[in-house]
This record gives sequence, C-alpha cells and structure tokens, in this order.
Amino acid sequence: MSRRAYALERTGNRSQMHLARQGEITPEMQVVAESERLGPETIRAEVARGRMVIPANVHHQNLVPVGIGLAARCKVNANIGNSALTSDIENELHKLAVCVRYGADTVMDLSTGGDIPGIRSAILQNCPVPLGTVPVYEAVARAERVEDLSPTDLLEVVESQARQGVDYMTIHCGILRSLLGRLDGRLTGVVSRGGALMARWMIARGEENPFYQVYDDLLDLCTRYDITLSLGDSLRPGCLADAGDGAQYGELDVLGELCRRAWARDVQVMIEGPGHVPMHRIQENVEREQRICEEAPFYVLGPLVTDIAAGYDHIASAIGGALAAWAGASMLCYVTPKEHLALPDAEDVRAGIIAHRIAAHAADVARGRPGARDRDDEMARARFAFDWDAQFDLALDSDRAREYREAVAPRGTNRSVHHCSMCGPRFCAMRLSQDAATWRMLAASALDPDAPCLERKE
Amino acid sequence: MSRRAYALERTGNRSQMHLARQGEITPEMQVVAESERLGPETIRAEVARGRMVIPANVHHQNLVPVGIGLAARCKVNANIGNSALTSDIENELHKLAVCVRYGADTVMDLSTGGDIPGIRSAILQNCPVPLGTVPVYEAVARAERVEDLSPTDLLEVVESQARQGVDYMTIHCGILRSLLGRLDGRLTGVVSRGGALMARWMIARGEENPFYQVYDDLLDLCTRYDITLSLGDSLRPGCLADAGDGAQYGELDVLGELCRRAWARDVQVMIEGPGHVPMHRIQENVEREQRICEEAPFYVLGPLVTDIAAGYDHIASAIGGALAAWAGASMLCYVTPKEHLALPDAEDVRAGIIAHRIAAHAADVARGRPGARDRDDEMARARFAFDWDAQFDLALDSDRAREYREAVAPRGTNRSVHHCSMCGPRFCAMRLSQDAATWRMLAASALDPDAPCLERKE
Repeated sequence: MSRRAYALERTGNRSQMHLARQGEITPEMQVVAESERLGPETIRAEVARGRMVIPANVHHQNLVPVGIGLAARCKVNANIGNSALTSDIENELHKLAVCVRYGADTVMDLSTGGDIPGIRSAILQNCPVPLGTVPVYEAVARAERVEDLSPTDLLEVVESQARQGVDYMTIHCGILRSLLGRLDGRLTGVVSRGGALMARWMIARGEENPFYQVYDDLLDLCTRYDITLSLGDSLRPGCLADAGDGAQYGELDVLGELCRRAWARDVQVMIEGPGHVPMHRIQENVEREQRICEEAPFYVLGPLVTDIAAGYDHIASAIGGALAAWAGASMLCYVTPKEHLALPDAEDVRAGIIAHRIAAHAADVARGRPGARDRDDEMARARFAFDWDAQFDLALDSDRAREYREAVAPRGTNRSVHHCSMCGPRFCAMRLSQDAATWRMLAASALDPDAPCLERKE
Repeated sequence: MSRRAYALERTGNRSQMHLARQGEITPEMQVVAESERLGPETIRAEVARGRMVIPANVHHQNLVPVGIGLAARCKVNANIGNSALTSDIENELHKLAVCVRYGADTVMDLSTGGDIPGIRSAILQNCPVPLGTVPVYEAVARAERVEDLSPTDLLEVVESQARQGVDYMTIHCGILRSLLGRLDGRLTGVVSRGGALMARWMIARGEENPFYQVYDDLLDLCTRYDITLSLGDSLRPGCLADAGDGAQYGELDVLGELCRRAWARDVQVMIEGPGHVPMHRIQENVEREQRICEEAPFYVLGPLVTDIAAGYDHIASAIGGALAAWAGASMLCYVTPKEHLALPDAEDVRAGIIAHRIAAHAADVARGRPGARDRDDEMARARFAFDWDAQFDLALDSDRAREYREAVAPRGTNRSVHHCSMCGPRFCAMRLSQDAATWRMLAASALDPDAPCLERKE
C-alpha cells in the first residue's frame, strides 16, 4: 500500500502512537524495525508507551521514517535555515543535501527571514528525513511585534506548516509566567530564541504563555496531521553557571505535565534538553528528564561542557552529547563550529553532523545497542589489512578520510601501500606487528624480516 | 638564583622527586604552585608522593616548569616531529610555535627521519614547555635493524638526548616476552611503534626486553639529568575490540612494578595509557592504573571512543580524553584530524591541541579544580554584555573565534553590534532577554521595546 493511500485510509487520530496503542504495526514501524535491527512488535510497544516517536506527518510524501527513543540508535539532528541577514533557498537546499549526505537523521528548518514558507516547501520536497521547525519563528516574521500575535494566530502558523508536511515542531509552551521570576541571578538569562519571544509576549500582554493557553487545540492539530511535539526548553542554561537552576528544572516539571496531557490524546512527544552543562551534571539532567517525563525521548542541544570553546563548540557539544546519549538521551541536536559567532555554512553543517554522529555512535557502543560495534570491528580489520578503500568506506565521512589520505598517497596506490605518511614504512607498528606474527609462525626459519615484503610506491 | 647555578649546586640525584622527599621546595615547585593556584607545600608533597611529576631536565635552560598530576589542571601534550617521508626543521619549528601559541602544556618530538638530533636541538632552543621524546625512534634510525642494537646502544641514545635537555622520555620497558603470547585474538596486534620495535627485537634476539634488562642503569641516567620516565604502553589497544584484554592489563602490571622500582630511586614516573577504548570502559582503565601504579600520573593517548572517525579522530579522542581526565588522568596526548591517515600539518596540530584543551578543561570543571570555571563565567558575562572583544580574549582559540565573527561583522563594529549573524537582530535571545529584564525594571513605563536601542552596522 502506498504511503499516500495508507494515509488516506486513516481517520480521526492519525498519529503513530494512536495506531500503536490500537495494536497496529504501521509501515513506518516496519521500516524503523528494520533499520534498528529490532522486532516490529518492540517498535510498536515503544511507540505506544511513548518511549519512542516516529515523526511522520501524513503530508510528508517522500519520508523514510526514523524512530527516536531509548531502544533505538541515538539520532543526530542538523539545523539549517536562513536568517534575516544571510542565506537563500539555493544555499539552504545545498545545506540540506550536505545533511543527507553526511548522515543527519533529522533536519530542522530554522529559517527566520525571507520567504520562509517557500524555503520550507523547497526543503520538504527534497527531504527524505523527518523535518522539524519552530513555528514561532515564522509567526514572528509575519508580525511587527510578537505580542501582536494572538494564540489563534500562532495556531494558524502551526497548521499551515503541518499542511506542508512538517514532521515535528518545537513549541515553547513550558515557559510559564510564574517561572520568569526564577531568572534572577542567571548570568545569561534566556538563551532560547523561542523562549525569549514567549517571555516577551507574556510580559507585554500580561497573559499566560499563549501555547499553554491553547494547548488542547494544539493537540487537536497534532492528531490530525500526526505532528510530533518537541516540547522546547525555553529556560535551558546558556552557560555552565546557569545549569540545573530553579528556572530550568521548574520548566521541566511543566514539560512533564504537558507530556502526559499529550499522551492522553495519543500525541507523540519529545522533550528538549540543554544546553550548557558541566560534565558531572549531565547524567543528572537525563535521569531527571526520564523520571519527570516518564522516559519520553530526550532531545538535547549538545550539551556544551564548557563555555570557552568558541570556534570549536561542535567539539564541546560532542563531548556533552556523548555523555548525554550514553546516559539515555535519544537525539542530539548538533552544534556547529560557528555557534555563538555566525550562521553556519555548508562546511560547518558537515563538521557539526560528523562530530555528533561520532558522539551518538560512541554512546550506542557504550549502551550495547544491537550491532553497534560491528562497523568499528570492520574498520579495525581493514586497518590491520592495510585495506585503504575499505577504511574510507567504513569512515563516518568517507570523503574526508579519502581526501586526507590521497593528499599524501596518490589515487590508485591505496591497495599496495602498507604504511601511512605519519610513521613511514620503517616505523609502521601494524606492519611490524604483522611481521612479528609471521615470525612466530615461521619460528626459526631463515626468513629475512627486513626484506622489502611490501611494495612502496611513494 | 639562576636555574643553571641552581642545577650546578645539585649533586648526585638531581630529580625533583629526590629534592621533594628531602623536604626541599624547588624553584620549579614554586612556579608550578603559582600556575596551579595551589600551595608550594602541596606541590612538594605531591611530587614526593609520586602523584605529580615536574619534568625538568637540568639541561633544559629556557623551561617554564609544568606540574602533571591528580592535584593539577589536566595537561595536554602535542606531538610534532617529522617522518622519513615528510617534513623538515623549518616545518617542525613552525609546528612548535603553533603548539606554544595554542596552549600545548608539553610537546613531544617524535621525529623518525632526517637529522633527528639536529631537529631536536632546534626544537629545544625554542621550547619553553617540557619536551618529551621516544628515544628508540632515534636509535632505530641509527641502525639498519632494531635487533642490531644492544641494550647499551639504547642507553647511549637515552643519555645523548638527556644531555640535550629532553625532559621526559617514553620507554617501552613493560612489554615482556611473556606478554607476546597474549596477542592472539587481537584484531590490530601491536599499534605502538616503540612497542612493535621492542617485540621485533625480542623475537629476533630471543632475549628479554632490552630496556627491562638495563632498567637500573636507565634509572641512574634519570637521577643524573632528572629525566621523567614515561612508561610506554606498548600493548595498548588499537581498536575497541582489543580494549582491556590480557595483553594490555598484563603490561600494566609490569608498569606498576617498574614504577615502584623508579620511585625507590626517587625517579619521576608517568604511566602511559590507551588508545582505543569504548566510553563505558574508560573509568575502569583509569581506576586500574591508579590502583596498580599507586596514582602515578596517568598520561593517556585519547582514548578514542570509536574506530570509525577517520578524518575526525581528534573529536573521538576529545570525547574519550574528557572522560579519562574526569576519571583522573593527568595528561592527554592529543590526536589530530589526520590520525590513521597522514602526518599532521600545522593546522592539524592546532585543531588537535584545541580539541584536547576543551576536553581537559571540561574535566577540570567537572573535578572542581581551583578556579576552573572562572573563565567560563567570564565568557558568559561577556556574551550577555555583547562584548565581542572580551569573548575573543576568553576563547581557547581567540584567533579562530575572531576570524569566524569578523567574516560576517567587519572589524571595528564589534562593540556596537548586539546580535550575531546566526539569529539576526530580531531573533537574538540574549538581546530579547535583556529587554525583558529592562521591562521588568521599568514596569509600566512608556518605553517602546521595539525601538532600535542598539545601533546596527551591518
């Protein structure tokens, strides 16, 4: 059955969670089961339980479904999108292609300027992975001031994006008026863009959070299109000093309540997490989310384990992301080298994706996910066999590995050169090690160990 | 008293450990105490106990001493040096300058080709940080085959390097004949260059490890020049699959014995560690070293938490290094993006250093070392104040941060532009957050929150 026909057959609540709770194993669950090397019934049970989401808007036609949750491989999200100052559709499509090529599991379009719906439409037409957005960005771009928008205006933007096929949306509905008083003493205040807009809205209008006001209507939309909610952490810490304070954890309590309300309507939910967190408090963050939000998939931004890595924040974030994923986070939002400094270009997107795929994969190995270490072992065998082509194929970024190697060893010599330019032929430990193994086998034979057994082309 | 005069006054055993054990607080200990924000008596006690080393060859004239140990900030070592295939003196001096500029705490010269003593002499003349070597590399470059060298030949190389002023040396004396039988079943055999050479030597000559044979004579040399021994882990795992096997841990037991024999002669010792280790086994590695080697400073290479990061192994290594340092490792040997592929150039050296400084610093924060978070807090304040120049100054790589920022915001506008090109002026959370704080203070005043309060130059 085609995806479109399948979607048409659905009635009423079309969410994967709703179907899972009715005992149905959907085609999306089948695809996820295969890619995760898990049984389809496991996937169904996890989705029904809320411990896994499959963001799959009924209008996203060319989607290859992805499962995000504790039982699945840890995923990596890449943000693209323009700002008012830079970037255009062509640039964004190029970035999207880079995301897909280098293995982003999901993509968020965070455009905040220009023809936002047009850019998103172009992205969706070319996007095989789940696409996420932050609807308030488009809403604000439509209005002069955020506080000019009514809660209904905001819902209209959500629905217009849902009609386009957006699979998951970050909604900043957990930042309540009562939490704003907890910001005193923070070094960096509110660092979430959407969160800051909600704070401004509430202060200017003297009302409660608009998305919180119309949360039930929002859930209606989610059931109709199967939008997966990604409950934003507006009050995430923007520096180590602000980590784990009353504002952050107070909002998490609200997110727990909103998660349960969504689940009561069979709406799929992820919980967003920090941010900037010192290493020794990352596990605490994940465990707290799992307790308060009953193991809803935790989708973390980094976290960055230091504030002083400007220009290399993808590395500070990969360290924190690896720890978070090991502790149980289900998806890492990438951070690029340009974080805190400028809008990332395509090369930054690539660097950010690979850094976080390293983190996510390392955590998959540490958690013992099915088959996680197979590719590492293949790489080890390829290294010991000096099979350079296999090494390139197995590398997370084959293009880069090949480029670095071929700069010193011209194409075509790969299979025959049994050393690298770092050690040179006489100092290659692996080659020496192979020789030693050979010696052990040949015992006291007359083999000359220094004979040029391996051709050298350089 | 000048360092030279001071050194001349020393007699017999000139090691920092020997002096510490006699109750003396040396000028080197004073310098370390200041840079670590610890008391001089603490430094002396840690050096006497063997829990800290201060590698400071009496012939290294322009050295600024550095303390390496549990009580000190975690340090980062950068490897430079040519191979038989590439690089020359000028290149190596440029790499050294990059090491110093970007904050390597120590440097190892791993040259294996060309005029090795000449390169090292040039490096030492320009090296304010402790310099390490692996003497067997020079020894092998002198001979046709490693097994042509006698133990005495090897000691001669050690002494010639000590006379030049090398502060610490990696000696592969822990790989004994009895351990070679434990290599069966490994995917990547022996990946330590020095270790593989020792294995070859033992197999070819049918004798025990040469450095192990003359270990007491080696300790004599160490007392004379105050060489700090860095006991090499020849059998470190070269892939995740080989981590923590009988070969690796068997060698660690030997290193524990050699550590105690060195301490009995008041010789300073570090223990080298892996390598490739999955995240969930890093703490086990550090704790085992601390138990077996009685908390002698643990100097780890990475460890890399996955084998499939070719082209980005500095990131796989930074993740593992951060975990190791948090668990108690005292120095991280950097890995560059070219690891497993090619000899690093100056840009790779820079990338490797910064990646591992991020890891080491994150661990210092996690361990609560004195003042570790101060710089992060300063950065947070500078970010909230939009003080771009302060942000550049506080970044680990100021040059890179400035370069990324100035590509989108021309020089001279830094102080006046209160947003970055990522979010643009209307979406800057920090700016919105500041506005919100202002609003709270001004209560119901007539201030228009959307007035262009901040000049925009772009």
